[in-house]
Amino acid sequence: MANSNLSCVLLGPGKVRFEHRPTPQIDDAHDVLVQIGYVGVCGSDVHFWVHGGITRKVSEESPLVMGHEASGTVHSVGSAVTRLKPGDRVAIEPGIPCRRCDKCKSGKYNLCPRMRFAADPPKTDGTLCHLFKVPEDFAYKIPDSLSLQEAVLVEPLSVAVHGIRLADLRAGQTVLVQGSGTIGLLVAATAKAYGAKTVYIADINETKLGFAASFGYTTFLSDISSTPYEEAERFKKEAGLEDGVDVVLECTGVESSAQTGIYACASGGTIVQIGMGKFNQSLPMGAMCEKEMVLKTAFRYGPGDYDLALELLASGTVSVKAMISSIVPFENAPEAWERTRKGEGIKNLIEGVRV
Amino acid sequence: MANSNLSCVLLGPGKVRFEHRPTPQIDDAHDVLVQIGYVGVCGSDVHFWVHGGITRKVSEESPLVMGHEASGTVHSVGSAVTRLKPGDRVAIEPGIPCRRCDKCKSGKYNLCPRMRFAADPPKTDGTLCHLFKVPEDFAYKIPDSLSLQEAVLVEPLSVAVHGIRLADLRAGQTVLVQGSGTIGLLVAATAKAYGAKTVYIADINETKLGFAASFGYTTFLSDISSTPYEEAERFKKEAGLEDGVDVVLECTGVESSAQTGIYACASGGTIVQIGMGKFNQSLPMGAMCEKEMVLKTAFRYGPGDYDLALELLASGTVSVKAMISSIVPFENAPEAWERTRKGEGIKNLIEGVRV
Amino acid sequence: MANSNLSCVLLGPGKVRFEHRPTPQIDDAHDVLVQIGYVGVCGSDVHFWVHGGITRKVSEESPLVMGHEASGTVHSVGSAVTRLKPGDRVAIEPGIPCRRCDKCKSGKYNLCPRMRFAADPPKTDGTLCHLFKVPEDFAYKIPDSLSLQEAVLVEPLSVAVHGIRLADLRAGQTVLVQGSGTIGLLVAATAKAYGAKTVYIADINETKLGFAASFGYTTFLSDISSTPYEEAERFKKEAGLEDGVDVVLECTGVESSAQTGIYACASGGTIVQIGMGKFNQSLPMGAMCEKEMVLKTAFRYGPGDYDLALELLASGTVSVKAMISSIVPFENAPEAWERTRKGEGIKNLIEGVRV
Amino acid sequence: MANSNLSCVLLGPGKVRFEHRPTPQIDDAHDVLVQIGYVGVCGSDVHFWVHGGITRKVSEESPLVMGHEASGTVHSVGSAVTRLKPGDRVAIEPGIPCRRCDKCKSGKYNLCPRMRFAADPPKTDGTLCHLFKVPEDFAYKIPDSLSLQEAVLVEPLSVAVHGIRLADLRAGQTVLVQGSGTIGLLVAATAKAYGAKTVYIADINETKLGFAASFGYTTFLSDISSTPYEEAERFKKEAGLEDGVDVVLECTGVESSAQTGIYACASGGTIVQIGMGKFNQSLPMGAMCEKEMVLKTAFRYGPGDYDLALELLASGTVSVKAMISSIVPFENAPEAWERTRKGEGIKNLIEGVRV
Repeated sequence: MANSNLSCVLLGPGKVRFEHRPTPQIDDAHDVLVQIGYVGVCGSDVHFWVHGGITRKVSEESPLVMGHEASGTVHSVGSAVTRLKPGDRVAIEPGIPCRRCDKCKSGKYNLCPRMRFAADPPKTDGTLCHLFKVPEDFAYKIPDSLSLQEAVLVEPLSVAVHGIRLADLRAGQTVLVQGSGTIGLLVAATAKAYGAKTVYIADINETKLGFAASFGYTTFLSDISSTPYEEAERFKKEAGLEDGVDVVLECTGVESSAQTGIYACASGGTIVQIGMGKFNQSLPMGAMCEKEMVLKTAFRYGPGDYDLALELLASGTVSVKAMISSIVPFENAPEAWERTRKGEGIKNLIEGVRV
Repeated sequence: MANSNLSCVLLGPGKVRFEHRPTPQIDDAHDVLVQIGYVGVCGSDVHFWVHGGITRKVSEESPLVMGHEASGTVHSVGSAVTRLKPGDRVAIEPGIPCRRCDKCKSGKYNLCPRMRFAADPPKTDGTLCHLFKVPEDFAYKIPDSLSLQEAVLVEPLSVAVHGIRLADLRAGQTVLVQGSGTIGLLVAATAKAYGAKTVYIADINETKLGFAASFGYTTFLSDISSTPYEEAERFKKEAGLEDGVDVVLECTGVESSAQTGIYACASGGTIVQIGMGKFNQSLPMGAMCEKEMVLKTAFRYGPGDYDLALELLASGTVSVKAMISSIVPFENAPEAWERTRKGEGIKNLIEGVRV
Repeated sequence: MANSNLSCVLLGPGKVRFEHRPTPQIDDAHDVLVQIGYVGVCGSDVHFWVHGGITRKVSEESPLVMGHEASGTVHSVGSAVTRLKPGDRVAIEPGIPCRRCDKCKSGKYNLCPRMRFAADPPKTDGTLCHLFKVPEDFAYKIPDSLSLQEAVLVEPLSVAVHGIRLADLRAGQTVLVQGSGTIGLLVAATAKAYGAKTVYIADINETKLGFAASFGYTTFLSDISSTPYEEAERFKKEAGLEDGVDVVLECTGVESSAQTGIYACASGGTIVQIGMGKFNQSLPMGAMCEKEMVLKTAFRYGPGDYDLALELLASGTVSVKAMISSIVPFENAPEAWERTRKGEGIKNLIEGVRV
Repeated sequence: MANSNLSCVLLGPGKVRFEHRPTPQIDDAHDVLVQIGYVGVCGSDVHFWVHGGITRKVSEESPLVMGHEASGTVHSVGSAVTRLKPGDRVAIEPGIPCRRCDKCKSGKYNLCPRMRFAADPPKTDGTLCHLFKVPEDFAYKIPDSLSLQEAVLVEPLSVAVHGIRLADLRAGQTVLVQGSGTIGLLVAATAKAYGAKTVYIADINETKLGFAASFGYTTFLSDISSTPYEEAERFKKEAGLEDGVDVVLECTGVESSAQTGIYACASGGTIVQIGMGKFNQSLPMGAMCEKEMVLKTAFRYGPGDYDLALELLASGTVSVKAMISSIVPFENAPEAWERTRKGEGIKNLIEGVRV
């Protein structure tokens, strides 16, 4: 029934319930209701599915609707909405900042301390439901050329765009992307869109690297039996780079990878940590100091990132079609999490509720 | 005899010889010869004195003239020199870049791979001699108001200026300086000159903090029995800062200090590593990522740093007189290294050769 | 009666009416009602008083409450307000952006196309009334050390802060401020707070320059019988600057002043146009191109500007007490406009409604 | 005879002499001697040919070798040269800075006051000769894929690169290039390489626009009978841009074009003046202030610009083959200037001395 909001709710590790929740009401005139088309699965979803959360955990008493990568179709709009109308196809930016704090006003809303991010326990439910409410300016109309499936990828592509922006990447620079998963591939594609001279992509997985090579990146197979320093030296030799790359984009979160990245980076260069990994990591600070390197960390996405991600897709500069590996029906959501947990495919999707 | 260049030469750990070396000749028309007035001692000098070098070591076969913080009086000038004349009092910038590589031309000469830095084994001798040759533009005329002793401090002050520039510090920001030695104090003074709202300075040494307090900084006595996280929480509570400081300037090189600095930094903030310490350091990367922090490392000084350091001294914005703790005659140089090794005083000087 | 909102309403050139308007209601839980303490007069108020508006004019049919520089005391607060309570003394930021457009989200809310700015015809009434409604985050609590009169000056000081930020002013730079009125003096003070080496201030009015000199700036009496080029050459000679100043802050809006500023600026330097003047202005583009100069224009104030302005006042870095020239009662508001029109005093204030 | 250095010398307006000058000697060990392959003609050459100079004029008493856009083959090298050897094909950067002043050291060598730029009267001769001396680091080895003819275009392409860098252009931005001549076309190509979303190119010449369209830019035929404001409104309407473009790159030097550019620019946007035109230009300062626009001026090229220009050509990102319109023998140089004066072709070349 259209008025009931079927939702996929996590109750604890490996424990999910599909329940009919009340349809959200448009109280704020700027809000729209989106009928979810597709929801993507990322590593954090798997972490939730396996462990019931990251820092804060869900429970029977404190259940949570899953999902934060999503696209859909506008169902209804508030009275102040001007740019969207029912039927419009949209990509959803899943974190709604307060708009009133210093971070929000100074162009860093991703750091808003009152951010309400989809599927963030205990209070903010996610997008894995029939109807999801979002302010108009966080629902981005997609062009006809883009499918609702592809539009799910705007979320991870925005992560990539945000990282590249932090890197302050310019045309003609050399780039090393570490990690050849969804984020690594999207970061590499964005680096190319920014005019990077050469994009190197490193991974320990030959199959993933093969996929990366098909996009035209220069691949480097990491050898975990070598030290990070040795790996970096081998990389620089293979790449013919005396001083290293201008920019490193670390997308694995693996400590040794960050270390290799630092050694592989040129004097005066920048490494951006995009992947999340171990809380404490040992870094060759001495090498960083001698090279006056900069280490930046990237947190989600901010102003303009969704716009640029969509533009890159709309213009065909970045293509994500080949990254969509599987689609399961809404009621089989855990299957998509399981596939991702097992490392099957690049991006696994869950279909919205069929009406 | 004025024509012989008495020099203090290190031959190995704890082994020094005073020898008469040939007076340098002005081959390049842009060079000047400076009669050294005073040479300062810093931690790296002590490291050389105790260990015979840092990475590359000196030896009987490969001896090295010591010293890199220096002031003096112009002795003679090349034919193309226009801004200096014999008798001018100068502060010496001790690293001469190649001027031709990409780093030099793009405004980062401190990263020049062909840099010739004073007292850098095996090839580049230092300033602890009678007459030292330097290109005109690396000898900075000092104002009458400044003594040759104070002018020695232009070198460490330039380190401070460089760090503050990298921090992109702006008026109204809150700053935590870690370490209350020469560099920490000069960094704090420079932060004030840039209009910092409040400058907090942390150290484990109560005496040093007392000295810092006399300059008007807010001091924080570090307690090494607490964890870095606890220290940072205590600091933020004492300082009344909910989110932490905008900028951290780490001047100790101590791993736990960097960790504390990261925890004490506000969301979106920057930590600049100025002090050199352990090559590998464990950092709370998770905390950095959540706050989208930036870690920069500072290497020596670059374009404009000496100019600004001199300007800060000339205008009285920064005062270094009180930091000069002792002056020993040229032939007693090792005494100054020993004092510094034992942590006696803030800045110990060696007088130039008496003529 | 406390429930009536006495307001000073402009009906056309030189035509004002004091009328009791309905007390504003707190509909948005984030809003606060401020009982106006003082309202300042600036050039645009005079323009309204004399011409009935700038682009859009007021009329009997479309009257407008005057005033946009204001301080006051919190009268009541909405349910979501957390940082303010009745009785708090505040400085009011008079422009409320939409918080939802790209400009607002990317840190440039001063460029919000849906900005509602106090006393902006036809729709947005100003602050010259008994009770004024404003969102909590646009009412800044002032410290005990600051009077409500001084707090009015936070508005023009924010204009100064915004201009200095755009100039990207750094410690040690030389600055030329053109115009020694309220804005010029506040810009000069802010430049000093940012660590400017020397602040030159130019004006055609000797009395105003004398006042500027009392703050410690180096004054330059402009001679309108000379050409801008000659003026700039004379200025550089007097200042002993071969290449010119690093930063010019044009606060007069006068065409010839901008021209002089461009000639007086060093190669690679920046001029920021803060003052508003003639719509079309002839500039020596050839001189700008040869020096690769940057011309920036400043529009009002944005994120953090009010905070920094308040901080500069709270810390005593900038003092505005001496700039307050007169205070007239609410019902005599036109007298304050007249004084300002005649060039009497620096900043003339209007007292709020007495209760 | 190889030992004589045949040169094309300007003696005054329309007056040229071919004379055998002494072969330059390599005094500085870092210098190389280049046998000139091709020399390009630009607007300033025509100005010299017609008027005998721009500010400073040549004469019989003070003659000048013409030419500054040049490529060639290394003839001999100094003893300190490491990256070039006789026979290497190079593009020549024609301005040699002093390497010692503040501008040179801070990354702005294009603003060096002691710059020696080819064909700059009275002292610095140009490249239109048999053998030209240049420091190693100002002769850029070109890849095999690039012809010596194409390599001449590295000079104007560096002008384009420099302008785009100043514009701080980022992927996804919209760009208006004004002027569809050599510089305009190269600026447009570089903007594309930086990931610009849409590149609009405007000109009054339909033929030139047709050529631009063949490169895939969106063209706009300027109508000089309209006002700049009307032109900008028509442009924005045609382009479907409500607020205007993010970046304007003015490559004509025409006053009305700069005015149109300012009106066509979005709020918060930037216009970069690349073309040189009238010394004094009237600009709509009011429009700039309301939009808080930035006007930058570009002067030649600086660190890294030649490298990036070469990289864009080497990678095929930018193609210049189609822009080479004619090639005349060395002794017919004036013919190439005449063609350019008459507006024939895009880029006319002069061949080096045949040996």
